[in-house]
Amino acid sequence: MIELGIPMLLIVMDGLGDRPCRELGGITPLQAAYRPNMNSLIRRGLGGLMHSVSAGMTTGSDTSHLSLLGYDPVRFYSGRGPFEAMGLGLRLSGGDLAFRANFATADSEGIVLDRRAGRLDEDASELADALCMEMDGLSFQVKAGVEHRAALVVKGDGLSDRITDTDPHSSGEKVKEVRALDKEALFTAEVLNKYLAEARSILGKHQFNLRRRENGKMPANELLLRGAGLTPKLQPFREKYGFNGACIAGIPMVKGIGSLLGMKVLEVEGATGTVNSNFRNKMDSAVEEMRNSQFVIVNIKGTDAAGHDGNAILKKRVIERFDQALEPIMDLDVTVCITGDHSTPCDFREHSGDPLPLLMSSPGSRRDGAKFFDEISCMNGSLRLGSGDILQYMRQLSGNDEKYGA
Amino acid sequence: MIELGIPMLLIVMDGLGDRPCRELGGITPLQAAYRPNMNSLIRRGLGGLMHSVSAGMTTGSDTSHLSLLGYDPVRFYSGRGPFEAMGLGLRLSGGDLAFRANFATADSEGIVLDRRAGRLDEDASELADALCMEMDGLSFQVKAGVEHRAALVVKGDGLSDRITDTDPHSSGEKVKEVRALDKEALFTAEVLNKYLAEARSILGKHQFNLRRRENGKMPANELLLRGAGLTPKLQPFREKYGFNGACIAGIPMVKGIGSLLGMKVLEVEGATGTVNSNFRNKMDSAVEEMRNSQFVIVNIKGTDAAGHDGNAILKKRVIERFDQALEPIMDLDVTVCITGDHSTPCDFREHSGDPLPLLMSSPGSRRDGAKFFDEISCMNGSLRLGSGDILQYMRQLSGNDEKYGA
Repeated sequence: MIELGIPMLLIVMDGLGDRPCRELGGITPLQAAYRPNMNSLIRRGLGGLMHSVSAGMTTGSDTSHLSLLGYDPVRFYSGRGPFEAMGLGLRLSGGDLAFRANFATADSEGIVLDRRAGRLDEDASELADALCMEMDGLSFQVKAGVEHRAALVVKGDGLSDRITDTDPHSSGEKVKEVRALDKEALFTAEVLNKYLAEARSILGKHQFNLRRRENGKMPANELLLRGAGLTPKLQPFREKYGFNGACIAGIPMVKGIGSLLGMKVLEVEGATGTVNSNFRNKMDSAVEEMRNSQFVIVNIKGTDAAGHDGNAILKKRVIERFDQALEPIMDLDVTVCITGDHSTPCDFREHSGDPLPLLMSSPGSRRDGAKFFDEISCMNGSLRLGSGDILQYMRQLSGNDEKYGA
Repeated sequence: MIELGIPMLLIVMDGLGDRPCRELGGITPLQAAYRPNMNSLIRRGLGGLMHSVSAGMTTGSDTSHLSLLGYDPVRFYSGRGPFEAMGLGLRLSGGDLAFRANFATADSEGIVLDRRAGRLDEDASELADALCMEMDGLSFQVKAGVEHRAALVVKGDGLSDRITDTDPHSSGEKVKEVRALDKEALFTAEVLNKYLAEARSILGKHQFNLRRRENGKMPANELLLRGAGLTPKLQPFREKYGFNGACIAGIPMVKGIGSLLGMKVLEVEGATGTVNSNFRNKMDSAVEEMRNSQFVIVNIKGTDAAGHDGNAILKKRVIERFDQALEPIMDLDVTVCITGDHSTPCDFREHSGDPLPLLMSSPGSRRDGAKFFDEISCMNGSLRLGSGDILQYMRQLSGNDEKYGA
């Protein structure tokens, strides 16, 4: 166990980075926002820019959060399956096999009529629940997502992701059997085919689908699987760093990553992962939790959501509301880092690889003269870090690391 | 052999980097110091920041000096044993097996009564000398350090560090036998157990210990070993770069690293590795040596010592005195780089991962407008290098490198 210094708080404003917005006359939502607390924090410490994973890389929230927590996604990321399953609220452990799945419509010959079951316009949770079961020593969990989307997670020993999709990827073709791509995957393929036959039988006679047929809608009578991925086995956070870590987030994927790393995942009232999330409750919980956990990560999703919506005014408002929620941490003896996980420029409506504004504020640290926390002003700050360096940099500012060498 | 350009002088002010010091009203010792020569050098060239090994990493002097000389510690560092032995003045070669050791007190049954022999309050050099011997074709060297500390180095063929400690790591337990952790280590374990039995016999009847018993003190009758490490086999400096390198330092560890790399290790009168070291003699020697060696590294330890003592005024004075000692190099046709190996902030009293101020001055080089050599002003300089890039950057400024490609 290392000797500990002061606690560390990493605030990740999801999709924070932006480009000049037409709606704001050519400045970014962060530049436009009234943000006295962020500007005060940067003046007490260091500012700069952070690349997510590596320079110019356009990352997702999964790869970027792994990197921010010091787990290199280039080494550990095994595809979207496990992380999309986490995004739907399933908790995964290393070795779990996960798929992206569609509720689809097939005819009695197994020919796919619609890969999206008419873009399923109702909540399919009861269908998903009906497909959760134990079979051959494995546990199968299905969770419904938006419209036709779902995830399947298989837990148990001896699973492999070296298998083919059942999704033919176009309608008019037959649902495929799962095939093993090597010998070690034979068991996985066999048990999945058996499970899918059972699932087909359950779906075919489920009252959800009988109802849909009565109403002239396409039944969701097939679960198409694609993108098999084994959940990476990652060294637990506490074992890796020698101190406790906690995770506060509205969105399930970030909670899922925290859970995967064995971090404490807090449930905070009003933390919804939307633009209306209760930011103050999240910050109060973070302050409270820093009594137990030496490191706390807080994810704020509203900025990303506003970026995807192309709503620069809304993104500015989310930032302003979050700035007010920073009040409880302004005078604490802790190291604070604020940055994002990737950029989501409003005029682009998608993730981009633009670097993120970055601030580090720690009692006694150097001050580099950075005055404003935004994409442009931070170019004059001293920090140029990759997301994989962030936690290490916070550790050294806080006296929470071990010397490398003598 | 490459065609050579002008000589290169790398000055490493140990533990140079700092944070705002209370004692200095919130500036760093380097900011506070009168340093006309350093400021003149940076105005003729380039300034910036350097990470030791990698961003935010808190390094020791061993890992950081390896990196500054272009030997990546992440690939080559084998633990503290060999480098602490060098720190006590032992010269090691690749393949030598080294241990951190304690003089301890054990009873006739081999039970450890005190792991530190009462924190041995007298020089144990005569004990150490008595334990130096040849046995089974191997050479055993012991060197006493501060209080109960010592190092053991074993030289010879076929050695392995895949062995267990003899140190039980708590008193009241029996001294352990060395055990091999794999087949290749069986010879090493066997010969070490034989050596330690002989050492026990020598220590038990040594007059140093008879004296201690007479005075009612705990005898230092056991040498406890821990942290076995094989000295890395590193490509000699001259072979790696195609020119001669020389090393000027007061502290034995840096001299040991120079020796390990086959560099010329100069003995300079008054170079003590303390705050009172004769800096002018060191710089005069460096100037003289640049007639023979294309690359000279000079380590100044006083800055680190003052940082560990938490004495910001003293650190400032050491810097000022060293600045004066730079006079002989101010008008030479050489490339000068000044930086540190790691930060040792006075208010923290330990190493930190804060980046180091960096200057490169070379006739004809670009000038980036940097005006002052200190942690804060250097943030406006153009350089952002890792310690592993420093020697290569000096080579290219000096015309001492080979083109990569056509």
